[in-house]
Amino acid sequence: MDIAKRFTQNPLIQPEDILASVQGAEVECLLNPGVFKFEGKTYLLMRVAERMKQREGYLSTLVVDPTKEGGVSIVEFALDDPKLCYDDARVFSYDGKTYLTTLSHLRLAESEDCINFKVQPKPLLLGLGEYEDFGMEDCRVTQMGELYILTYTAVSEYGPAVGKITTRDWKTFTRDGIMLAPPNKDCAIFEEIIDDKFWCLHRPVVKVDSWSELNIWLASSSDMEHWGNHICLAKTRPGMWDSQRIGAGAAPIRTEQGWLEIYHGCDETSRYCLGALLLDLSDPRKVIARSEEPIMEPLEKYEQQGFFGNVVFTNGHLVDGDCLTLYYGASDTVICAADLSIKEILQTLLS
Amino acid sequence: MDIAKRFTQNPLIQPEDILASVQGAEVECLLNPGVFKFEGKTYLLMRVAERMKQREGYLSTLVVDPTKEGGVSIVEFALDDPKLCYDDARVFSYDGKTYLTTLSHLRLAESEDCINFKVQPKPLLLGLGEYEDFGMEDCRVTQMGELYILTYTAVSEYGPAVGKITTRDWKTFTRDGIMLAPPNKDCAIFEEIIDDKFWCLHRPVVKVDSWSELNIWLASSSDMEHWGNHICLAKTRPGMWDSQRIGAGAAPIRTEQGWLEIYHGCDETSRYCLGALLLDLSDPRKVIARSEEPIMEPLEKYEQQGFFGNVVFTNGHLVDGDCLTLYYGASDTVICAADLSIKEILQTLLS
Repeated sequence: MDIAKRFTQNPLIQPEDILASVQGAEVECLLNPGVFKFEGKTYLLMRVAERMKQREGYLSTLVVDPTKEGGVSIVEFALDDPKLCYDDARVFSYDGKTYLTTLSHLRLAESEDCINFKVQPKPLLLGLGEYEDFGMEDCRVTQMGELYILTYTAVSEYGPAVGKITTRDWKTFTRDGIMLAPPNKDCAIFEEIIDDKFWCLHRPVVKVDSWSELNIWLASSSDMEHWGNHICLAKTRPGMWDSQRIGAGAAPIRTEQGWLEIYHGCDETSRYCLGALLLDLSDPRKVIARSEEPIMEPLEKYEQQGFFGNVVFTNGHLVDGDCLTLYYGASDTVICAADLSIKEILQTLLS
Repeated sequence: MDIAKRFTQNPLIQPEDILASVQGAEVECLLNPGVFKFEGKTYLLMRVAERMKQREGYLSTLVVDPTKEGGVSIVEFALDDPKLCYDDARVFSYDGKTYLTTLSHLRLAESEDCINFKVQPKPLLLGLGEYEDFGMEDCRVTQMGELYILTYTAVSEYGPAVGKITTRDWKTFTRDGIMLAPPNKDCAIFEEIIDDKFWCLHRPVVKVDSWSELNIWLASSSDMEHWGNHICLAKTRPGMWDSQRIGAGAAPIRTEQGWLEIYHGCDETSRYCLGALLLDLSDPRKVIARSEEPIMEPLEKYEQQGFFGNVVFTNGHLVDGDCLTLYYGASDTVICAADLSIKEILQTLLS
């Protein structure tokens, strides 16, 4: 049962609200923001996917290029060039080198009221180095004291990996490299130390001959740099709303009943819904309860139609007492928000 | 150029030399031993792949089952049972549950002369728990002081992952769980601390839409439990002998010129050869040199014909001065050995 009260202002931010980062490019999609408070304001750290406007007879795209102002350069190939291979809307190759048709960066939007957001005109974080050649995606923001820890998908030919960046002031950033080797994504670090350890949720991307395993795993660490003791926390469930793939949202929320984790699940029709996991407060390896039915489903038109329809996907939220405000990507196109009652979510889990 | 001097006694151990661990089963393949010295003797820790002898009209296989004596039980299904799906020689499913047709365990063989090996009649280590449902494979043995650290492929429906076990006496074993999340394998821990850190080589199994990335990565650790700072150390090389996949062998060998790592590479014909990487002694993230041509290729009949032909694959060796004795799996069927001169390998790398 969908128990989300969507903001009447949805969508809050749309591609047409955003300046492209490079002349000749356009913002194609806004996706899945990390969310945090800083100096009294609310911020979304959005994934912005850009595509070049195409000239007839040519295929062009954006590539990460730290030598260029703006950190991005444009490459263009004639469609009749025999070295060009393109038969997929998302990826092509030229002379054996792979390119994506869109490039994602992370950009900030700020708000005083959690509803009206002002988007910064330029990217905050661009892919940097060989592990982020194809950009940065779906950033979770974990806060511990004054430290903000960003975990995101570093995308490159090496496959998706989990990158980590830390900051205290949102002006200077420390790039900590690849925290979890590819193929992995959807990583959220818990905001508290439990049993003297740091903990994170993550989602290995396992494709074995005839089957895929896209489950939520848990790992622990003594320093947030090195991770181990990996266990599978939750598996996809055949025949249910989360039968094909699942992945963590933002950091779990402490409640009296346990750690409440909002996660996404997708079924065989590629419909993405949200559900919840409840983990033991003192030992997050123990799953106390899990949503039988989604707590949020793509019901509104803006959740059903877009670049990739029938998707609600979250990796950022605010908590204010019983009110959980989820910021979410709808149809991989626009940014929306919805309020849920934590008590009500727990009732669906524990009744 | 193949510079390996094969033992005239090759193959040293064959499936017919080995007792199956369960009545009704047969040893199908011997593969890729880890190698170590203990109390003056040389040991191989082999991967033994077993298969049930089949009754007409039925399909049976071995499954890990800690409740059974021997740790394994037998399941059998009628071929005309509609719940049975089989169309792959390696894997089938019954009622939605996946089974492999062979099950691998780790078994010891001991020798006084490094040539004649006596194989223990029973498995030393069997898969245990949900991450090893489908067995244990390709164990590397790293020695640090009196501690032996075993890194192996834990195989299950979750995909291949890196498991770790430690022992000091080869009688009691500490199972440390999943050290690197799936999909990953071919993990070898360095035998020395460098720059106050432990180091390991590993091989993520990346399958992205239209391409695979099967490269050798490097990670570091402060405790051998938790690993981070992952970097790609060596990539497959299009058009060369290691164009499709590469993976580390055993722990690197300290030489005056650098850490010498023997690795396997496979080309588009699935021919597995061995080559070498030379890494900076004080910073193993720096690759000094890499084999342009293999240093060992499948040339002998026993390396060209078998369960999976045209394979030489090593993850265990002994070093005695300039002499490197590689123990290797040939054609995924028999265990062999060959001597190589470390000086000669370095000459191929540095000339």
